[in-house]
Amino acid sequence: MAEHAGPTSSAFARDGGLAAEADDHFHDECGVFGIFGRQDAAAIVTLGLHSLQHRGQEAAGIVSYDGTQFHVERHVGLIGDTFTKQSVIDRLQGNRAIGHTRYATTGGAGLRNVQPFFAELADGGLAVAHNGNITNAMTVQRVLQKQGAIFSSTSDTETIMHLVATSKERDLNARFIDAIRQIEGAFSLVALTSKKMIGCRDPLGIRPLVLGDLDGAWILASETCALDIIGARFVRDLKPGEMVVVTSKGIESHFPFEPMKSRFCVFEYVYFARPDSSVEGRNVYEVRKKIGMELAREEPVEADIVVPVPDSGTPAAIGFAQEAGLPFELGIIRNHYVGRTFISPGDSIRHMGVRLKHNANRKIIEGKRVVLVDDSIVRGTTSQKIVQMVRDAGAKEVHMRIASPPTRASCFYGVDTPEKAKLLASRMSVGEMAEFIRVNSLGFLSIDGLYRAVGEAARDNDAPQFCDACFTGDYPTRLLDMEGTDNVRTLSLLANGGQ
Amino acid sequence: MAEHAGPTSSAFARDGGLAAEADDHFHDECGVFGIFGRQDAAAIVTLGLHSLQHRGQEAAGIVSYDGTQFHVERHVGLIGDTFTKQSVIDRLQGNRAIGHTRYATTGGAGLRNVQPFFAELADGGLAVAHNGNITNAMTVQRVLQKQGAIFSSTSDTETIMHLVATSKERDLNARFIDAIRQIEGAFSLVALTSKKMIGCRDPLGIRPLVLGDLDGAWILASETCALDIIGARFVRDLKPGEMVVVTSKGIESHFPFEPMKSRFCVFEYVYFARPDSSVEGRNVYEVRKKIGMELAREEPVEADIVVPVPDSGTPAAIGFAQEAGLPFELGIIRNHYVGRTFISPGDSIRHMGVRLKHNANRKIIEGKRVVLVDDSIVRGTTSQKIVQMVRDAGAKEVHMRIASPPTRASCFYGVDTPEKAKLLASRMSVGEMAEFIRVNSLGFLSIDGLYRAVGEAARDNDAPQFCDACFTGDYPTRLLDMEGTDNVRTLSLLANGGQ
Amino acid sequence: MAEHAGPTSSAFARDGGLAAEADDHFHDECGVFGIFGRQDAAAIVTLGLHSLQHRGQEAAGIVSYDGTQFHVERHVGLIGDTFTKQSVIDRLQGNRAIGHTRYATTGGAGLRNVQPFFAELADGGLAVAHNGNITNAMTVQRVLQKQGAIFSSTSDTETIMHLVATSKERDLNARFIDAIRQIEGAFSLVALTSKKMIGCRDPLGIRPLVLGDLDGAWILASETCALDIIGARFVRDLKPGEMVVVTSKGIESHFPFEPMKSRFCVFEYVYFARPDSSVEGRNVYEVRKKIGMELAREEPVEADIVVPVPDSGTPAAIGFAQEAGLPFELGIIRNHYVGRTFISPGDSIRHMGVRLKHNANRKIIEGKRVVLVDDSIVRGTTSQKIVQMVRDAGAKEVHMRIASPPTRASCFYGVDTPEKAKLLASRMSVGEMAEFIRVNSLGFLSIDGLYRAVGEAARDNDAPQFCDACFTGDYPTRLLDMEGTDNVRTLSLLANGGQ
Amino acid sequence: MAEHAGPTSSAFARDGGLAAEADDHFHDECGVFGIFGRQDAAAIVTLGLHSLQHRGQEAAGIVSYDGTQFHVERHVGLIGDTFTKQSVIDRLQGNRAIGHTRYATTGGAGLRNVQPFFAELADGGLAVAHNGNITNAMTVQRVLQKQGAIFSSTSDTETIMHLVATSKERDLNARFIDAIRQIEGAFSLVALTSKKMIGCRDPLGIRPLVLGDLDGAWILASETCALDIIGARFVRDLKPGEMVVVTSKGIESHFPFEPMKSRFCVFEYVYFARPDSSVEGRNVYEVRKKIGMELAREEPVEADIVVPVPDSGTPAAIGFAQEAGLPFELGIIRNHYVGRTFISPGDSIRHMGVRLKHNANRKIIEGKRVVLVDDSIVRGTTSQKIVQMVRDAGAKEVHMRIASPPTRASCFYGVDTPEKAKLLASRMSVGEMAEFIRVNSLGFLSIDGLYRAVGEAARDNDAPQFCDACFTGDYPTRLLDMEGTDNVRTLSLLANGGQ
Repeated sequence: MAEHAGPTSSAFARDGGLAAEADDHFHDECGVFGIFGRQDAAAIVTLGLHSLQHRGQEAAGIVSYDGTQFHVERHVGLIGDTFTKQSVIDRLQGNRAIGHTRYATTGGAGLRNVQPFFAELADGGLAVAHNGNITNAMTVQRVLQKQGAIFSSTSDTETIMHLVATSKERDLNARFIDAIRQIEGAFSLVALTSKKMIGCRDPLGIRPLVLGDLDGAWILASETCALDIIGARFVRDLKPGEMVVVTSKGIESHFPFEPMKSRFCVFEYVYFARPDSSVEGRNVYEVRKKIGMELAREEPVEADIVVPVPDSGTPAAIGFAQEAGLPFELGIIRNHYVGRTFISPGDSIRHMGVRLKHNANRKIIEGKRVVLVDDSIVRGTTSQKIVQMVRDAGAKEVHMRIASPPTRASCFYGVDTPEKAKLLASRMSVGEMAEFIRVNSLGFLSIDGLYRAVGEAARDNDAPQFCDACFTGDYPTRLLDMEGTDNVRTLSLLANGGQ
Repeated sequence: MAEHAGPTSSAFARDGGLAAEADDHFHDECGVFGIFGRQDAAAIVTLGLHSLQHRGQEAAGIVSYDGTQFHVERHVGLIGDTFTKQSVIDRLQGNRAIGHTRYATTGGAGLRNVQPFFAELADGGLAVAHNGNITNAMTVQRVLQKQGAIFSSTSDTETIMHLVATSKERDLNARFIDAIRQIEGAFSLVALTSKKMIGCRDPLGIRPLVLGDLDGAWILASETCALDIIGARFVRDLKPGEMVVVTSKGIESHFPFEPMKSRFCVFEYVYFARPDSSVEGRNVYEVRKKIGMELAREEPVEADIVVPVPDSGTPAAIGFAQEAGLPFELGIIRNHYVGRTFISPGDSIRHMGVRLKHNANRKIIEGKRVVLVDDSIVRGTTSQKIVQMVRDAGAKEVHMRIASPPTRASCFYGVDTPEKAKLLASRMSVGEMAEFIRVNSLGFLSIDGLYRAVGEAARDNDAPQFCDACFTGDYPTRLLDMEGTDNVRTLSLLANGGQ
Repeated sequence: MAEHAGPTSSAFARDGGLAAEADDHFHDECGVFGIFGRQDAAAIVTLGLHSLQHRGQEAAGIVSYDGTQFHVERHVGLIGDTFTKQSVIDRLQGNRAIGHTRYATTGGAGLRNVQPFFAELADGGLAVAHNGNITNAMTVQRVLQKQGAIFSSTSDTETIMHLVATSKERDLNARFIDAIRQIEGAFSLVALTSKKMIGCRDPLGIRPLVLGDLDGAWILASETCALDIIGARFVRDLKPGEMVVVTSKGIESHFPFEPMKSRFCVFEYVYFARPDSSVEGRNVYEVRKKIGMELAREEPVEADIVVPVPDSGTPAAIGFAQEAGLPFELGIIRNHYVGRTFISPGDSIRHMGVRLKHNANRKIIEGKRVVLVDDSIVRGTTSQKIVQMVRDAGAKEVHMRIASPPTRASCFYGVDTPEKAKLLASRMSVGEMAEFIRVNSLGFLSIDGLYRAVGEAARDNDAPQFCDACFTGDYPTRLLDMEGTDNVRTLSLLANGGQ
Repeated sequence: MAEHAGPTSSAFARDGGLAAEADDHFHDECGVFGIFGRQDAAAIVTLGLHSLQHRGQEAAGIVSYDGTQFHVERHVGLIGDTFTKQSVIDRLQGNRAIGHTRYATTGGAGLRNVQPFFAELADGGLAVAHNGNITNAMTVQRVLQKQGAIFSSTSDTETIMHLVATSKERDLNARFIDAIRQIEGAFSLVALTSKKMIGCRDPLGIRPLVLGDLDGAWILASETCALDIIGARFVRDLKPGEMVVVTSKGIESHFPFEPMKSRFCVFEYVYFARPDSSVEGRNVYEVRKKIGMELAREEPVEADIVVPVPDSGTPAAIGFAQEAGLPFELGIIRNHYVGRTFISPGDSIRHMGVRLKHNANRKIIEGKRVVLVDDSIVRGTTSQKIVQMVRDAGAKEVHMRIASPPTRASCFYGVDTPEKAKLLASRMSVGEMAEFIRVNSLGFLSIDGLYRAVGEAARDNDAPQFCDACFTGDYPTRLLDMEGTDNVRTLSLLANGGQ
């Protein structure tokens, strides 16, 4: 058709395409939270999302239902700045609500893709909030569009809504099951209708989702820290492939997928989850300390002090120091007042090597052999700067120890990663990387060391216990949308700044 | 289905449901503007919408296409405050663009319903901006939802998009024709794809739409004043039922409906259109002056001065004064700095009868027999206050003359009107109304007088030349959505303040 | 002294230096309003300032006193947008308050110079709001600085505060009198202390100030329209040189200056004051109509229609049409939605001659001999554009009639005027001006015609009844600050955008 | 005099009066930074202030001088949100600039007191930024007011400006010396004129001020971390009572006071300064670790783990753990996304004991005997909540160790402290405090222990080496303004929200 521009000139792209370069980490894209059957539900959701803020700082949304109608609020910015306004909370009436917080895409991205997505279906309103990434979303979207569906966002969540809407099943549970059976990839979903709250995890259980209870009201949340903030009781992790349906009569559990061996994202332990959360039965802080201990055993070094790259390297550095019998010192101080928008002002100082976020503590470092512990290396640019800063502060030697294996492959399961070519470990050996970041020595944790830290004997290469694709390139699902393309993220983007 | 709340508890309502009480007028809900084939297209659209600001002050949107991708900007507020920012205009790249300005609904309504609506269809992006109201939108929407469509706004524009998307035709023109043949009511649409700009009017031509030309670039606009602001040439009014398709090769015209006699909205002449516009071949200011002359003949009065209720009563007052041989005087001064948000501050003065918008000029009025000329009476509350103010200023007699027949029925064609029971003329005789607003005499123009003012001999009651339903209750189309309900506007509304 | 940069490199300039080019008019810089002894005083002041918005749209301030402490609010923007917020009004507790609205200076000027000025003196708080200009303010300021005074704004109001503070008198009334005796120029002041509200006018009474009464509470306001909005009673104009002191015991009147013949600003009648106000005993609308009549007699013309340049030319056009026996027609329509920030977007259309504010009504003008009536010509650029627009609309002849004499000299009494060299009438004869703006004929009202319109037989050249310096160059006071300089406005300016 | 309200009903109060209750700490009120002789000076100041953000988060200001005029920007909010906008930095032209960041007072406090203060004196512009508090400011202010000075802010900085302005000396250096000789208390000032940058410390050197050098441009800053961020060289601490004057010819040093023994604020080491700063020759992190070690020796305890109250208790906890031979564990996780405005939404959850800022890590704490290390106890309310949270997480025993002596007295030297009666240690014994916060044991560092940690043998009670008034009540200066009043902070306050 003449006016058909074709997918490559389409206005759409998957969300992950907008990598924020500011911070050299992988970033989990979302946190979800829902509560059913509790007065001031939206206020509870606000608190839950606040505790999940580390999973996404750009924007957040809450949908509540008050028995008669749905209320939708979506705002760009931190929960604590946007949803704590009385007027906002007052509009979100009802005793059930779900919410979502999302990772920074680019500045102007606006509200178009902020979740929960809400739409009116034939049988009433449906809101869906999603953590993960549907790896066949575009393929499904194209089929749906050919059937006449229209898409008003670039979110794969909208694809799920369409699948629910077009299902031939008659009952919402059946329609929902019909929908999630058609999608592939990683998804931890929370959904709300006028009568139900639904939570489900993909059959591999790649992203976390926990069940909690607050004085009889059921809660779904990405991590247990979101239960702690409100004093809710942790009930259990949802099982991989489980779908729970909460109504005013109680909770019921469905298992719509063939059982599979779990492939939980091991990087949640390395970096994404909050240290005080427990996910899939393990405390995150404890795992990180054990990682540090394994690292000290695998990559020992003669040194004077162990210094974490704050804050993400701190637990592993504590473990490393304990195991190595070296003093743990705060040799780098982090400035927590750095906002997302801090731009070095003035042309003449843009290349001064300004230390906005981290500063070395010269008195601690001067003349010392320093072990720096960080959680991971992505592009290597931040590591370069930090090593230089530590050298400028007078370190005699700098030894970098990384609390994970080299990250060699992109993630397609809801994590913002650079394309593979930009991953330092995909194009350099460890020795080359050491030279690139200018350290006396560089050591990574081995993949088996990582598995030991989470309590396994070793990686079962025939049937890995976790998703570790970013380290191994071993993706646990098909990647249908990515087939035949270098990277789905190169699609053009709808510029929708002003919404 | 259990979770089906049914339409009455749905989150949706047609847009018109949110009557702004601040101003006792009917309000046209929208203005549209598009240009194809001109550098800085969005800047031109900005100017066009600025000149159509009287058709809607709440919010505006522009969609442009730059040859590769679409750009969407939607903002709450006046064009001159939002779209004139360099950063906004810079994002709207491309040599073709359409825009829309909409009437105030309630304060918190947010961006959800701001047009143009944009979505990705199987064959690429489609943007639609709409002036009017689809009277079978909900009926169609329910059918579409049963087929699996999901609706993310409450705009009937989204219904049109779905009809285009689900059409079985293969060519966009055919699909568009297929869509508009399924809808009823009033619609003057402007649409944009990557290759085409489309404009069309409903078969009765209820709302205006004109075609213009700026150095070879085609323009579609609600009124001619939007051509004047940029020095564009007026080509012609689109015909009722006409659909024009503009491509880089030129313009072509389609007539997808059975020919019908035109039923243009006569209230556009009374109040909606700008006095310097010409619509359907008549200059609005001239019609209003003739209305004033007819009124002077039909409802003469012994008086000293003719005073308009500014600004909408001014042209008719000039005509009345000329015909009656009475002096035309600015006996009431309007304060143009009244914004939408002006709320009398302080409890103790809320009922002081504060004159925020109009003030009587005592020196002109004192001791005089005053003919006040206004365009219409809706609820009567503003008239009451103005008459009281003129009396307080010392008028000896106050005679109100209204430049239209009594408004007795709601409009369902894209005009914000109160429900019928709140229309003063629907529950009072002229005598009772005179008493209610406390005037010495009250006169309305007759329906035939109005038809004479627009150049007809009289209303042809068998085949009326205009839509005059607000005066006569004679609706020129079916009102499918309203059947069996008192008023479609009573549906519950999605509260979506924060978007 | 080494670090003394001298006055020419000082950070200060008188306010008037920032001519806004957007609108080819002289602009009065301020309106003042105060009330003493009324609950919700600040809310009343808000309403009063709203009705004085035509005297200044940039920013406004209110100071109230609640019996214990003063409250100060200053905001950039229209009264109706800023002071009507509940939180703002709620902070302005007290039964006495004064306020000020000021004319646009440049965009970034910020809050530094927004009045009322408030400071703590030895004997308590003092707030002063000022309409006018002190012509020896810089001279006095330099003396005060040498005595150790520091200035934190560029407002001449601060000079008055310093004079009150440093007076050797012991009683506030005496100190205030001491202060105003040292200043020259035009001033209509309203001041507030914890016990008193003071109002005063300069000895020539150049700017207006009226006294009103609202159920026993005294009001001071720039114009009577500010009394009308709240239904207050007009008591009288303050006399030139009069100082009134309002306390809880009542009002007393002082005359601290030698009596002089009044020299009220005649331009208040021509343009500044609102048509529904009465100042110095004359209704502004009536004066303007009489001006139009005089103009029709002095500068008659064969023509078909009289068209005002809206809105300021409208009353004179009505008078002209009545006197000339020609039809009065709205041949030019004004778009009231033009905000201060409207900038033609896009480089390619900046010189399209866009008609943001006015549009000619072609159907009315085409083929006609048109008399355009405007209030004044300042730079002539706007007149040029309007004439061109009327010609483009097909006028056969265009005759411009100006409702005042040619403006040949700058105003130094609180009016924003361009420097003399930019005034069209200062460098062209009437014939040259006619050619410049491309009209068939151009006529100005004579100075005696203007005096007749305000009720005098003619101008008394030995002892003029008004200040008409902008027409005659005959300044009624010394201009101490301007001596030896071309223009005081060339002083450097403190750039204080962010405050 | 009749209208004299007297000081107690004055609109003014010293700044410190607005204690923010949100956080149970003393708070230093300000950080200052200046640079002279460097392109893009304001951008450098922005970076310097960003690194001093911990000394004040409410608002900041920068004044630059470009050789012709001064530029002033003041904004409420974090440096990284306000001063990094290109438009703001672009307005701050010049190669010399000073800046100031200030601690939160109340929300509505507005811009009135944001520093640097700028005013025009007889010999040109003067800007002053101040860290500290003038203890005789009100006394001096009253004298100045009686001489005719007017005060437009409540800042004691304005008092200094007036003293400079009214000095009889002829040279700026002499005038500045004259001014600072008249003030008492704590002050680390940075001032800017068109020719000079001046820095000075009070004769006791209570607050810090360091001198740095960036490629030949002189820098003054509150702490060394502000030098590190831009890679500037630390030159030395200013000496107590020293005044340095920087001009384009270089730097000169003056000592206008009689030499006194230094009394640097020991609390800068305990809490105010950043751990990576070195002040008065000691590295802050090192001092804090030594404090922890002293504390472990003075107040040992049988326990399983040492847990810091993050982030301020962390360095002392590391020292404690090292000295005690106990594992250091992150048993409490801090949420860094808590903004100043986070208010628990919804009435029903206001008293849920929500954990917005800290969460205990149950897996680490459960069943353990926990030593909590915090820097100080002010009101005790936060300690109560944290202890409860740790108990809820299953701690077997909770032992609190405080890295400073009990805070028993208010600070009058530029620190925001509650009034004495609200200090827990001023009304309870250590035993009562232990009961109040519900710990198994509570131990504070002794005053001599604190002195040992900073390198002294013990406190010299006859001539203390530091200002430790908050622990001892031994104020090193007169407190003139506070004499005869319970607390100067009880004065009424000018409510100036909207500025």
